[in-house]
Amino acid sequence: MEVGFLGLGIMGKAMATNLLRHGYRVTVWNRTIAKCQELVALGATVGETPAAVVAKCRYTIAMLSDPSAALSVVFDKDGVLEQIGDGKGYIDMSTVDAATSSKISESYVMGKGRMIVEAVKQKGGAFVEAPVSGSKKPAEDGQLVILAAGDKTLYDEMVPAFDVLGKKSFFLGEIGNGAKMKLVVNMIMGSMMNSLSEGLCLADKCGLSPQTLLDVLDLGAIANPMFKLKGPAMLQGSYNPAFPLKHQQKDMRLALALGDENAVSMPVSAAANEVFKKARSLGLGDLDFSAVYEVVKGAGGSGQA
Amino acid sequence: MEVGFLGLGIMGKAMATNLLRHGYRVTVWNRTIAKCQELVALGATVGETPAAVVAKCRYTIAMLSDPSAALSVVFDKDGVLEQIGDGKGYIDMSTVDAATSSKISESYVMGKGRMIVEAVKQKGGAFVEAPVSGSKKPAEDGQLVILAAGDKTLYDEMVPAFDVLGKKSFFLGEIGNGAKMKLVVNMIMGSMMNSLSEGLCLADKCGLSPQTLLDVLDLGAIANPMFKLKGPAMLQGSYNPAFPLKHQQKDMRLALALGDENAVSMPVSAAANEVFKKARSLGLGDLDFSAVYEVVKGAGGSGQA
Amino acid sequence: MEVGFLGLGIMGKAMATNLLRHGYRVTVWNRTIAKCQELVALGATVGETPAAVVAKCRYTIAMLSDPSAALSVVFDKDGVLEQIGDGKGYIDMSTVDAATSSKISESYVMGKGRMIVEAVKQKGGAFVEAPVSGSKKPAEDGQLVILAAGDKTLYDEMVPAFDVLGKKSFFLGEIGNGAKMKLVVNMIMGSMMNSLSEGLCLADKCGLSPQTLLDVLDLGAIANPMFKLKGPAMLQGSYNPAFPLKHQQKDMRLALALGDENAVSMPVSAAANEVFKKARSLGLGDLDFSAVYEVVKGAGGSGQA
Amino acid sequence: MEVGFLGLGIMGKAMATNLLRHGYRVTVWNRTIAKCQELVALGATVGETPAAVVAKCRYTIAMLSDPSAALSVVFDKDGVLEQIGDGKGYIDMSTVDAATSSKISESYVMGKGRMIVEAVKQKGGAFVEAPVSGSKKPAEDGQLVILAAGDKTLYDEMVPAFDVLGKKSFFLGEIGNGAKMKLVVNMIMGSMMNSLSEGLCLADKCGLSPQTLLDVLDLGAIANPMFKLKGPAMLQGSYNPAFPLKHQQKDMRLALALGDENAVSMPVSAAANEVFKKARSLGLGDLDFSAVYEVVKGAGGSGQA
Repeated sequence: MEVGFLGLGIMGKAMATNLLRHGYRVTVWNRTIAKCQELVALGATVGETPAAVVAKCRYTIAMLSDPSAALSVVFDKDGVLEQIGDGKGYIDMSTVDAATSSKISESYVMGKGRMIVEAVKQKGGAFVEAPVSGSKKPAEDGQLVILAAGDKTLYDEMVPAFDVLGKKSFFLGEIGNGAKMKLVVNMIMGSMMNSLSEGLCLADKCGLSPQTLLDVLDLGAIANPMFKLKGPAMLQGSYNPAFPLKHQQKDMRLALALGDENAVSMPVSAAANEVFKKARSLGLGDLDFSAVYEVVKGAGGSGQA
Repeated sequence: MEVGFLGLGIMGKAMATNLLRHGYRVTVWNRTIAKCQELVALGATVGETPAAVVAKCRYTIAMLSDPSAALSVVFDKDGVLEQIGDGKGYIDMSTVDAATSSKISESYVMGKGRMIVEAVKQKGGAFVEAPVSGSKKPAEDGQLVILAAGDKTLYDEMVPAFDVLGKKSFFLGEIGNGAKMKLVVNMIMGSMMNSLSEGLCLADKCGLSPQTLLDVLDLGAIANPMFKLKGPAMLQGSYNPAFPLKHQQKDMRLALALGDENAVSMPVSAAANEVFKKARSLGLGDLDFSAVYEVVKGAGGSGQA
Repeated sequence: MEVGFLGLGIMGKAMATNLLRHGYRVTVWNRTIAKCQELVALGATVGETPAAVVAKCRYTIAMLSDPSAALSVVFDKDGVLEQIGDGKGYIDMSTVDAATSSKISESYVMGKGRMIVEAVKQKGGAFVEAPVSGSKKPAEDGQLVILAAGDKTLYDEMVPAFDVLGKKSFFLGEIGNGAKMKLVVNMIMGSMMNSLSEGLCLADKCGLSPQTLLDVLDLGAIANPMFKLKGPAMLQGSYNPAFPLKHQQKDMRLALALGDENAVSMPVSAAANEVFKKARSLGLGDLDFSAVYEVVKGAGGSGQA
Repeated sequence: MEVGFLGLGIMGKAMATNLLRHGYRVTVWNRTIAKCQELVALGATVGETPAAVVAKCRYTIAMLSDPSAALSVVFDKDGVLEQIGDGKGYIDMSTVDAATSSKISESYVMGKGRMIVEAVKQKGGAFVEAPVSGSKKPAEDGQLVILAAGDKTLYDEMVPAFDVLGKKSFFLGEIGNGAKMKLVVNMIMGSMMNSLSEGLCLADKCGLSPQTLLDVLDLGAIANPMFKLKGPAMLQGSYNPAFPLKHQQKDMRLALALGDENAVSMPVSAAANEVFKKARSLGLGDLDFSAVYEVVKGAGGSGQA
């Protein structure tokens, strides 16, 4: 099977490598073309532009760094849109919001001027958004969780590739649902991080060892990889940003906004969100989201208010 | 090794059985003496009263249903206190509050009348509180988590027995710390249950399948046994009380009170506690604590306000 | 002094009447022209279109029902924009969001197509936004509070008219600040309404008369017109929508969003917002915002979840 | 009319003075007897002990500093209890909790030893608790608000005196209700102080003048004496303790506990309470309760966590 692959950052490189190892023929493109060489050594071909990759391959996967990059690769000169069409599929696995996915998927209309921009579907192409859960290590190990939505036929055709990239893929329905599912998961994760922080702090202040609390938690009904991984680092005040606090807070804000649209009252998430905001106001936004523990403890980062 | 065992309810029976199976000689007592027969069939001896058990055994373990029963067995006529003394150890594994453990451990003074009641330590005995985490199944499998505190020497002597009863025991320091550790764990658990409920509800209202959310959660960094066990039941509106909501709310209230004593601000736990209170006010207190999901959904039990 | 007046709803009619009574020459326009007759009886002249009013008057005040009406009157055919220009001032006193005021004030650009729309300032006109606090009665009595922002020179010229319409006007700086000030005030008001509801409910449940609580409150340091006005109606379950709950919740959401932009953690407002959301989810959105009391009591509107 | 008056602190002195000025014959007692001289100059008689005052007067009012003083004056040697009896009334206007009032009113039983202490009612006396709302100035001006409960006949007999001391008195039913009413009022007050703090902080961070916000608030539906009095001081960082933050937080805790007993969910008060706790943890407990503004701003007192 031949696939195109756009974007060879940490995630994209690992994913393209896995496809090559499982016998896929892969045509890669990256904004900095030099980054393609490592993949060429593993058997990849290089495409000069996103358009060239799409022209060559029936299926093209993208793994870009953010919504802006995801839009550029499609709409800019020599972009995906120039070659997408009947019988071709485009699969964006970048982590983007629902609105970005919608723009890539469909034409959109701006203001009263009705400036129509054609997008993948108008050109006749099929589109699937497929953001993933998991970072570098799961990407390398083919253990991502894939949250796909959009064109069901294209999804079905991609399942073998998804099986190489991840341990499990879900088809979630209409475009935007992949992004929404990530928000819901991250919202729960954010509340749990606050709960853990409160528990560690309470233990400490009432004469129990926070490390022992972690040990007890790890043996019980609420044991989970996040507590196990982050807990000990938090006790050491170590917050290397695997997932920056400002992004976690943004996701909680967006999840709460989704709740607002749908009239879902979520007081626990709202309380957690305000603590993350306090953390941001104290200058902790670029640390790992577990740095919310510093706010619960009452210390306060760089202290500016 | 010879041990006494007071209390043969669901938990106690399973625990005493495990001790017998591992070669301990066990003298059992239960308020309803008939319940002892099953254990006798496995090799146990019967003690007529708590005092008789203590007289015979160097170590006596108790597993009673609540604080009131835990106090009765010690202070009532023919109780533990009548025979406890130098060289004897008493280990209460019941789930009780810190105040109850303190009463059993030490003399206490009531009012200005200075009415002194002698307790285990005044009599010369050693005392360990050792509440457990885990219910019927872990008790049968010897997979409890034991949260011990009090007399360190007695704890050390009991470790072989604890190894039979549980997968891990912790020594947490002074009397009361076992109870406090349980409160902290349950507080985190209560917030997490609220977070899960909010996530399930948000998923449902914004067009995602709550069951798929459970599946996605189970593959990620916050996967945990509680979500896996309770989640599907919640989606079916099934709330068999493994841990009644009113007890969960009581534990959150006590944990928040502990936070108040120690000036620990815990807004997420406080928000979760208010939702559990709302659940209680709607008549859901006797259901499993996962019934808080009904409040988040907006339905409302029997509806009386 | 000659002023134009666009919009003769409940508020606009009362305000234009006050201007006439204080000797202003007023040229009125209303979408339903028939509504102008009452004002003509008091000495007003009628303008055929917004453009005609602006052509005739140096200053034109608008009091429209919502953002959409406020935009139409400016940008549609025969709108304000056709005649606004050097030496003319436009004062929009409608309650609109900051974004709407900005659109009326300045050109704006949509998307990459750079479709530029000219607005009041590009045409050479001066613009002041001036939303008011207060409803029908204060409008009739000239007792509004006016929250003005934008062109300071125009504001200064309008002060005599503002003195007729209100008991006090404030100049708050750049466009958008009037809307922001309203949001902050309404946010505080929303939290206070929740506080009152919780207090009334607690009083009732613990054996105190809620009516007596209102009486006690009215004699103390937190006595305020809202408690005095709404409290007794709430106890009777009467929620005639002076300010609909769904609008209050929208304002709280926007105020929280403003807090998010500026990294201000506001846990009390966030908690109050979630209760208003719960009220919306229970079908209470069209009642007065004091209907949040029903949620606190635990009853639940029409009960759909 | 002859009344006894126990306790001549700031409040008591002002109140006894008012009674004298309105023609009451007053027999005063104070722990530091020297403090009585000022009242003697106004016509008061001095009693040597609380018992002596009660022996002489049909009605005795007490205004003590705290629960401990309130209990001492009754139960200690030469205390009220020695002379109280049929036909005599005791009115405690100190601010105490419901439990303290109950102890003064009725016998109570401690522990299993059933140590019975006789109190006012057992001796045949009548008892009214009557805590007040208002501090020094209202006490001097006879403008207190009196929250009475207990013996209705005694209350009715005291109304003329209450009319001298306060602008309004309420009879609230059974003993404890006066204390509960104060808790409910203070809970609402605490939430409102948080709301104001959040609003001031949001205004400041989004480019509005906090002082202008205070001015706008003071003209609207939520204008109240507390905002007017405390607001400007808060903007100057001035927190002279009219009502210490730690007492406000204690009252919120007790109000929430009352809500817990009665299954009243109060998320806004709970959120406010956690912010007050954070303030306590930052060393602000002895400042005025308006110092919670410092926590909302993100500064943090002496910074110890």
